[in-house]
Amino acid sequence: MRDVAIIGAGMTKWGELWEKSIRTIFVETALLAMDDAGVDRVDSMYIGCMTGGLFVGQEHLACLLSDYLGLNPIPAARVESACCSGGLALRQGFIDVASGMSDLVLVTGVEKMTDVGGNEATYALATAADMEYEGYHGITFPGLYAMIARRHMHEYGTTREQLAQVAVKNHENGSLNPLAQFPMKVTVEGVCNSVMVADPLRILDCSPITDGAAAAILCPLDQAKKYTDKPPVKITGTGHATDSMALDRRKDITFLSATAKAGEIAYKMAGKGPDDIDIAEVHDCFTIAEICIIEALGFVEKGKGGPATADGTTAVDGKIPVNASGGLKSKGHPVGATGVAQVHEIVKQLRGEAGDRQVKNARVGLAQNMGGSGGSTLVHIMEVVS
Amino acid sequence: MRDVAIIGAGMTKWGELWEKSIRTIFVETALLAMDDAGVDRVDSMYIGCMTGGLFVGQEHLACLLSDYLGLNPIPAARVESACCSGGLALRQGFIDVASGMSDLVLVTGVEKMTDVGGNEATYALATAADMEYEGYHGITFPGLYAMIARRHMHEYGTTREQLAQVAVKNHENGSLNPLAQFPMKVTVEGVCNSVMVADPLRILDCSPITDGAAAAILCPLDQAKKYTDKPPVKITGTGHATDSMALDRRKDITFLSATAKAGEIAYKMAGKGPDDIDIAEVHDCFTIAEICIIEALGFVEKGKGGPATADGTTAVDGKIPVNASGGLKSKGHPVGATGVAQVHEIVKQLRGEAGDRQVKNARVGLAQNMGGSGGSTLVHIMEVVS
Repeated sequence: MRDVAIIGAGMTKWGELWEKSIRTIFVETALLAMDDAGVDRVDSMYIGCMTGGLFVGQEHLACLLSDYLGLNPIPAARVESACCSGGLALRQGFIDVASGMSDLVLVTGVEKMTDVGGNEATYALATAADMEYEGYHGITFPGLYAMIARRHMHEYGTTREQLAQVAVKNHENGSLNPLAQFPMKVTVEGVCNSVMVADPLRILDCSPITDGAAAAILCPLDQAKKYTDKPPVKITGTGHATDSMALDRRKDITFLSATAKAGEIAYKMAGKGPDDIDIAEVHDCFTIAEICIIEALGFVEKGKGGPATADGTTAVDGKIPVNASGGLKSKGHPVGATGVAQVHEIVKQLRGEAGDRQVKNARVGLAQNMGGSGGSTLVHIMEVVS
Repeated sequence: MRDVAIIGAGMTKWGELWEKSIRTIFVETALLAMDDAGVDRVDSMYIGCMTGGLFVGQEHLACLLSDYLGLNPIPAARVESACCSGGLALRQGFIDVASGMSDLVLVTGVEKMTDVGGNEATYALATAADMEYEGYHGITFPGLYAMIARRHMHEYGTTREQLAQVAVKNHENGSLNPLAQFPMKVTVEGVCNSVMVADPLRILDCSPITDGAAAAILCPLDQAKKYTDKPPVKITGTGHATDSMALDRRKDITFLSATAKAGEIAYKMAGKGPDDIDIAEVHDCFTIAEICIIEALGFVEKGKGGPATADGTTAVDGKIPVNASGGLKSKGHPVGATGVAQVHEIVKQLRGEAGDRQVKNARVGLAQNMGGSGGSTLVHIMEVVS
């Protein structure tokens, strides 16, 4: 397999982009990544999108969007694994370049979620759960993660305030990210008194509904200098793993086994361990998710995710900065785009281009992107080459 | 890149399978392919599915179905390119094995289309067209292909009866396929007098709404003998190309440029030309589609698809047997599954296991799978190794 590098990344400001169609959002973002990489063409394209069918009434997006970007007749594939569709697009792009099939690959994620009403959006998102055993009986994602949170509190003494600390940290980081949907700061008291969604989770424990896209350009590492003088970011590890989708089929709902497995594979491939990671972007779709993820990835001991958040271990100036971008909580969560936006943040950080939220001396980054209540997970490890 | 072989294929009887859920259909089919290949595990899995969201209210299918097959924590990816999602799954599986990432890969396609009513199914299928420029203005797929048919008749003198001959041939072939949804024979008169759908296309010009799945097992060619004594079928060419999705953006709507391009790439990679193909499975979603496809693939001259069908060129005992399985017309068209079912037919034919519909001395097969009105196309060339 060939070594693969990311040589460009792009992202536009996320939010409720009612004035833009999914094709506009996509094209604007893809062009930013192509400009960043110094390329005006690619050999193939991958799009991560969770459900164009339910959000915008449009499937076959890879065909449509490659045309609007002026790229046909190139091969264009959409991949989907719920909220980790973006991470999956990165993996498939990596394999495409590593195999020798393609030299220049555009990896993108996109979702336009605000063209439907709240009930429709909730239904669309619920299709990432086991609909026959979970969704059709009325449970939605806040409810599923609320059960995980309750169990984590029961088993490990995690507190309501520790959950809130995840939101406080990520909004603090997001306040320095000009592309974030909700860059306002929040307080522990504010989170704990915000509107109840599914006890114990309140509205400020939840990531928002967002329109947005993100994009990256991949090529063989030894060709990177042909296109750009910016330091290439090598993908040194890729892990992809699955777990049972419905919570009732898992032995321990507080343990994200697919994240642990994907992390294990990625660490091994990269020859790294949790202590080697300088910066991580993880899938904080709910505050409790980030706590379970940093445990599953081995950044902290099992059960210690709450205290580690509260004591600053995962702050930008802490031992392992987590979600310097603001995470899904503050930056937004256009579901299919999130995994690629994580890559955008890691690339900017490793190249020292993250502005006010720059993590010092970041050389090795990790992105963890998760689908459903953790049924599928992608973990990528990236290292700057200079 | 490593050489890649197909070492097993599976398919169950297609139809309106109201008594089975999508997970049952999927698992039954995948197990047939695994049994055929002599394997009880795989390293990764690809599922082609057009729209689980709109047909069964379930996204995140790769996670769900890998669990029901007992395969988690393996990497499991869903890919989508409308009606060529199955062909795309084969290509991604091919790249996965060729790259060295995985040794044993399960490639599947599945669609459960009859859990919704006719209007919902028509809407779901229309999302494979450009919804903003085509679908929302009222046109559905029979209408799009009717425009192609009318233009082909105008340009090349193709007749109503020649269109019907496609259906007659494919139902004749399908009558010998025990897995076909509609194995009855039809006549030219019967087709020409069937219910009008979109002038000039009548109901017997259209492929049906179908529930079904198909599966195949891939591995490196040099490992095939570890698993099975059956002759491996090597994938010698893969082509994937795109065109503008909306018909109004194309220069000539009777020319399927993505099919021509994908064919050109696959032929070149395999070192073959149209004359070297012993058997082809092509995407006859409508009778006119097969006529345009055999022209774009170079089996017949541009404009001669109608007469070539009428004179038996594409019959099972003709110069280039097309759709010996019965094609989408007779076998059925569960959209995401069709591309993998084409591979199932080619594997059975190349191994001499096609029973009453066996094509004599078939050594080289081609599968052409198409999304929308031809906006995306996959072409694969396969050769038996003995």
